Amino acid sequence: MSHHWFDPPIAAPDAAVRAVAHERQAQLTKPPGSLGRLEDLGMTLAAMQDTQHPRIDKLWITVFAGDHGVVAEGVSAFPQVVTAEMVRNFARGGAAISVLAKAWNARLEVVNVGTVQPLEDLPGVLDARVGPGTANFVHEPAMTVEQLHEALATGHDAAERAAINGAQVFIGGEMGIGNTTSATGVICSLLGLPAAQLAGPGTGLDAAGVIHKGLVIERALARHRDPSPLIALQRLGGFEIAALTGAYLRCGQLGLPALVDGFITTAAALAAVRLRPELAAWLFYAHCSAEPGHRQVLEALGAKPLLDLGMRLGEGSGAAVAVPILRAAAALHAGMATFAEAGVSTA
Amino acid sequence: MSHHWFDPPIAAPDAAVRAVAHERQAQLTKPPGSLGRLEDLGMTLAAMQDTQHPRIDKLWITVFAGDHGVVAEGVSAFPQVVTAEMVRNFARGGAAISVLAKAWNARLEVVNVGTVQPLEDLPGVLDARVGPGTANFVHEPAMTVEQLHEALATGHDAAERAAINGAQVFIGGEMGIGNTTSATGVICSLLGLPAAQLAGPGTGLDAAGVIHKGLVIERALARHRDPSPLIALQRLGGFEIAALTGAYLRCGQLGLPALVDGFITTAAALAAVRLRPELAAWLFYAHCSAEPGHRQVLEALGAKPLLDLGMRLGEGSGAAVAVPILRAAAALHAGMATFAEAGVSTA
Repeated sequence: MSHHWFDPPIAAPDAAVRAVAHERQAQLTKPPGSLGRLEDLGMTLAAMQDTQHPRIDKLWITVFAGDHGVVAEGVSAFPQVVTAEMVRNFARGGAAISVLAKAWNARLEVVNVGTVQPLEDLPGVLDARVGPGTANFVHEPAMTVEQLHEALATGHDAAERAAINGAQVFIGGEMGIGNTTSATGVICSLLGLPAAQLAGPGTGLDAAGVIHKGLVIERALARHRDPSPLIALQRLGGFEIAALTGAYLRCGQLGLPALVDGFITTAAALAAVRLRPELAAWLFYAHCSAEPGHRQVLEALGAKPLLDLGMRLGEGSGAAVAVPILRAAAALHAGMATFAEAGVSTA
Repeated sequence: MSHHWFDPPIAAPDAAVRAVAHERQAQLTKPPGSLGRLEDLGMTLAAMQDTQHPRIDKLWITVFAGDHGVVAEGVSAFPQVVTAEMVRNFARGGAAISVLAKAWNARLEVVNVGTVQPLEDLPGVLDARVGPGTANFVHEPAMTVEQLHEALATGHDAAERAAINGAQVFIGGEMGIGNTTSATGVICSLLGLPAAQLAGPGTGLDAAGVIHKGLVIERALARHRDPSPLIALQRLGGFEIAALTGAYLRCGQLGLPALVDGFITTAAALAAVRLRPELAAWLFYAHCSAEPGHRQVLEALGAKPLLDLGMRLGEGSGAAVAVPILRAAAALHAGMATFAEAGVSTA
């Protein structure tokens, strides 16, 4: 695939459809504004789907898994082997995202974009390893330029599969021991922030561990800091983070709304939006993570998440919990009667 | 029915089951605490349903509709006839709650507990009119003691129908032009607050309208203010508010969790919890309404709502939007693999 597949501008959701949606909202049998944010979500989904009867019934979830060389610095509460173990758990249906996908009748696929060791064949898991985990970015760039573009293309392909299968919303998830460290590096690089301001406990570091993690990231930033999204992803990212960036970019190109999950996925979304600012119109933000840096990135993106439930698991789990809000907004916009249809008096 | 049906203490959810649920949460394949509030919700639902496999699949929604004599004081942006018109809209499937009930496959019934005029037969609408709307509580008590108990019993019966039909969660909704005025009166009476601190725009009053509404409520409070929940409901309540109070109390007696919706329903829940404080363990609070007084009542109840989406419609709509969060919490608690089952390493 050409390295320039994401260069063309991304088209905006249809403004004329949105204008009609706005008129329709004013006629539905409720006091104006009384559905709060669901009204704007309904109008947005109408414009995205080019219909006054938007639907969020077909959900697609791709969880990208990859390992991180930076775990050699002791930045995670869990051992690296957990990345592969959790891929097996996804495949067997025991992980949080597996349970939520089943509950919502969503299509779930896992893409192994770079565990340290190759994995045996597993049902629902695609082998697309870009490498045996990233390099330790304290000492060298996390990946080569070729690896970066391979990871981006892997995300592109996942969004493509979602669209071809009729998905109405794309959820990207991630699994990768050490990836809050990588995500923090990418975000600090793109936003020009010191690591100490963003580093958090991830899967469960104590206070000393968070300080150590911040220092590790700061050392990496001293070597690699760069405001360009592609350079930041290549030097400080992870294969799964770059894949998510590619997936979001392709979602925008395909006009497929994406529901961004938590801290890691927001790092990927930030890189994607820095590459193509018009992409922002196609992204929803599911929740505010308990990972303390998340709120700052959301603010930098001007993003208002739908939920704030103290979640910090990743895997796409927060997005899966939020998706019924989009579904409700679509159903209300499509299905409510107007004052005229219902014979209800207005104010 | 005896006036004393809600006198006996309400049993708590099973503490032993909750202790087992707590142990189970610590073993599920995720960093401890990473599902945030969903973990506590899962444990709570396990204890409520006396199983480590709680389910929130069968939803029951009862919308109570009633009119309010106090609308003669010009306290609402909509004319009184809208109460009956919206009951017809519920029956025909055009209202927000109708759409959400269909989307979630919930059972929806409407109970006419006191429109001004009797209504024709409507599908899915029970005729249980306690009176032709309440009296104007600026001048006299909103209802008689007998009417209060009839309305409470109407709620009792709705909760009973929900439980008999196998509901796993009860949602009470309301429709009644003027009922934010009544709810504000009840809340101010129970919390000892001035009306000006709680009065809000309801369906859409302007600033002058809100001030007028506050003065109307203050006049009523000067005559009727009393910290006893039954007296406050009788003097300042509405038939639908009293019915909701009865429904919540019966839910607690039956061990059926109830998901409280917005401002009006929280007024009913406040009265119910003041009558039987143990009921609090059976109530979830769905969302923080845009009606400004709601946040204060939630704080007084120590309630942490699940959503904050700027909704202020009533009908049970906010609770319906929140119910997938309970469903997700139950599914995760029941369905996730433990570290041992999945062969995943721990921290």
